[in-house]
Amino acid sequence: MEFMQCIPLDQAKDLIVNSLDGIPVNCEMIHLTDALGRVVAEDIIAQVDLPPFSRSTVDGFAVRSADTFGASEGAPSLFSITGEVLMGEQTAITLCPGEAAIIPTGGMLPAGADAVVMLEYTEQPDVNTLLVLKMVAPGENIVARAEDMPSGAIIVEQGQRLAPQHIGALAACGCKNIKVRNRVEVAIISTGDELVEIDEPLKVGKIRDINSYALGAMLSEVGCDVKRMGIVKDSYDKFLETMAKAVANCQMVVISGGSSVGARDYTVKALDALGTPGVLMHGIAVKPGKPTIYGKVNNVPVFGLPGHPVAAMTICDQLVKLAVRKLMGQKSTSEAVAIPASLTRNVASTPGRDDFISVRLSKQDGKYVADPILGKSGLINILSQADGVMHIPADKSGLYNGETVEVLLIKSKQ
Amino acid sequence: MEFMQCIPLDQAKDLIVNSLDGIPVNCEMIHLTDALGRVVAEDIIAQVDLPPFSRSTVDGFAVRSADTFGASEGAPSLFSITGEVLMGEQTAITLCPGEAAIIPTGGMLPAGADAVVMLEYTEQPDVNTLLVLKMVAPGENIVARAEDMPSGAIIVEQGQRLAPQHIGALAACGCKNIKVRNRVEVAIISTGDELVEIDEPLKVGKIRDINSYALGAMLSEVGCDVKRMGIVKDSYDKFLETMAKAVANCQMVVISGGSSVGARDYTVKALDALGTPGVLMHGIAVKPGKPTIYGKVNNVPVFGLPGHPVAAMTICDQLVKLAVRKLMGQKSTSEAVAIPASLTRNVASTPGRDDFISVRLSKQDGKYVADPILGKSGLINILSQADGVMHIPADKSGLYNGETVEVLLIKSKQ
Repeated sequence: MEFMQCIPLDQAKDLIVNSLDGIPVNCEMIHLTDALGRVVAEDIIAQVDLPPFSRSTVDGFAVRSADTFGASEGAPSLFSITGEVLMGEQTAITLCPGEAAIIPTGGMLPAGADAVVMLEYTEQPDVNTLLVLKMVAPGENIVARAEDMPSGAIIVEQGQRLAPQHIGALAACGCKNIKVRNRVEVAIISTGDELVEIDEPLKVGKIRDINSYALGAMLSEVGCDVKRMGIVKDSYDKFLETMAKAVANCQMVVISGGSSVGARDYTVKALDALGTPGVLMHGIAVKPGKPTIYGKVNNVPVFGLPGHPVAAMTICDQLVKLAVRKLMGQKSTSEAVAIPASLTRNVASTPGRDDFISVRLSKQDGKYVADPILGKSGLINILSQADGVMHIPADKSGLYNGETVEVLLIKSKQ
Repeated sequence: MEFMQCIPLDQAKDLIVNSLDGIPVNCEMIHLTDALGRVVAEDIIAQVDLPPFSRSTVDGFAVRSADTFGASEGAPSLFSITGEVLMGEQTAITLCPGEAAIIPTGGMLPAGADAVVMLEYTEQPDVNTLLVLKMVAPGENIVARAEDMPSGAIIVEQGQRLAPQHIGALAACGCKNIKVRNRVEVAIISTGDELVEIDEPLKVGKIRDINSYALGAMLSEVGCDVKRMGIVKDSYDKFLETMAKAVANCQMVVISGGSSVGARDYTVKALDALGTPGVLMHGIAVKPGKPTIYGKVNNVPVFGLPGHPVAAMTICDQLVKLAVRKLMGQKSTSEAVAIPASLTRNVASTPGRDDFISVRLSKQDGKYVADPILGKSGLINILSQADGVMHIPADKSGLYNGETVEVLLIKSKQ
């Protein structure tokens, strides 16, 4: 039997990221309403000040703050009301000392004014006279022109994946069309003589193709355009043909099954046959997921994932998504935020290997606890019950009941 | 000025959830490849055992485990090899005592066998003879029929929002078409005389409509079908007409702006005019977001959110999403997982009010720290810099530097 050279997980991550240096996918212009979750291809610069004029943040009276100095309920400051700022209108009012103007929330601050007194701290003995019962500081109850974002500032940096608040900031600045990276087109191939499609009858000895659905869902979740290439039975010629087509038409290829050392191991052979540099890595010190293959056919990264669904999904989460982020030019290619949680039992682990174990996450007395779901690896039911995966780093030989572990969420807890 | 009766956040949540009891949206059948993120409308039951037959999880030899009893490198057990299980094929082999069969990973276990010996613990002196160098226990290196999921078991429960691993489990069971809840159709209306559309020229005194884009993005992220109804200027007739149209065509209406007490407060008036029960709540003890309105027009929930983008997004996250989950019949309507993090400075808060403050999240010495982004509320730039929002519950009067806070993520940290 061939010897499989396992490299540590961190080294595998570096290898993948470095191998994809300088080959991000192309860009396209899209409308802001389609931009959620997309990755910005260039720094987006504010073309105007935000807000474009100084605005009141309350309903009240615009004043010169110095005129309120010393004002109190016992000794209010006296103003004459010289006009009213209308919502959404430019105002021609200029305040002289001792003058105030009625202003609504969001109204434009008149010239001369530098603060707004809230309605509840005022009295109006008559329609032209105002008593201010409380001092205001310069800038109080207003947002000054450009205070939110000055013209020329970067609204969103290149490589940012757009969240709702970025969409809001871009709308505020009038950015209607946004230059983003294309979605990464990923070809997914399932291999194995035992696999049948979801709608085929299930003969004895066969099982259904799980991985192309589960991996497809994982990758579309992170913004890929997934092309399912179907099931390839264990014939090298058929496999080579499908892989050649995938490499020619997509920016990434993910194969599952056929990655262990043995007769069915066509991925290594095909990777080396189709182009350079071919196989870059075979075997990582990770459980589950050891027989993982990574290589490139020219500029197209190719992953050979294990056939076991849980192993395939673990490696997809750790490595394939990393490559997607790199290809999309994301600012940060590091992994998702992990939730610290207290472990409910002792868990053994082999030093020198990164272990990923499915857990249920719950809250007890305001703290998260992680309950490992034990069972044979490869059981899809374990993963579908799990809220997340806990990571035991390679330098640990196990973890004790009560120890704090990091849980990577795999299911939305909402 | 009218008095605004503020209710606590928790009470507002209960009120909203209870008001939507028994009015979930309709169902539809969709293909599994379209089902990611959708909410399952009924328990989905496995129709066959998973796996449908006992399978090997390694490459090796199927044996009767009792025959390996006492086997070691010094004293191997002797077997005669009676055949080979082919991948994906039903096997006719039946093992008698002392017999073994070659089996690949995923191969069907022959009758009589109850375990598999891994290739590396065997020797073959000749083609028909096998020496086993290590004992195996019953069930070792196999997944028994139905061990993953027996026929009749629930694969995915009603109300579950489908994550990639559920898609995998459903594929495994041959569930091609899935009954899910419809997406909630949400109408989004922006109000305010000062607002202009993203592609209109920006006259002095005007600002762009931020909320319908930011709120639209937030709600499409959680699976809504968002209908932007545009900007309605502050005319009650125009507003009433738009709201009547929204209520007639959508399952939820979200209005931003016009929710504070004052001349522009048409939301309350229109809610009561269009149907029963009308306004159910006006004002919550939350900062930012106090002037929030909630009500129903017949079975359509209507939210009136503040005009300030940060306040509108905070309340959308806390309350509108809750209503979406309830309408979609989600099993859990509770909020997302929060990350415990150590606070980098003292933060004051008013007791009796739930405060939400934007924070940057980073990792120091393996622990998360939350750095509050201070500044005037309503600055969209603060939110776009933030990784999350920290929550100061109503029973606290502030938090100290170093204290642990809970951070709700608002931006994917990947």
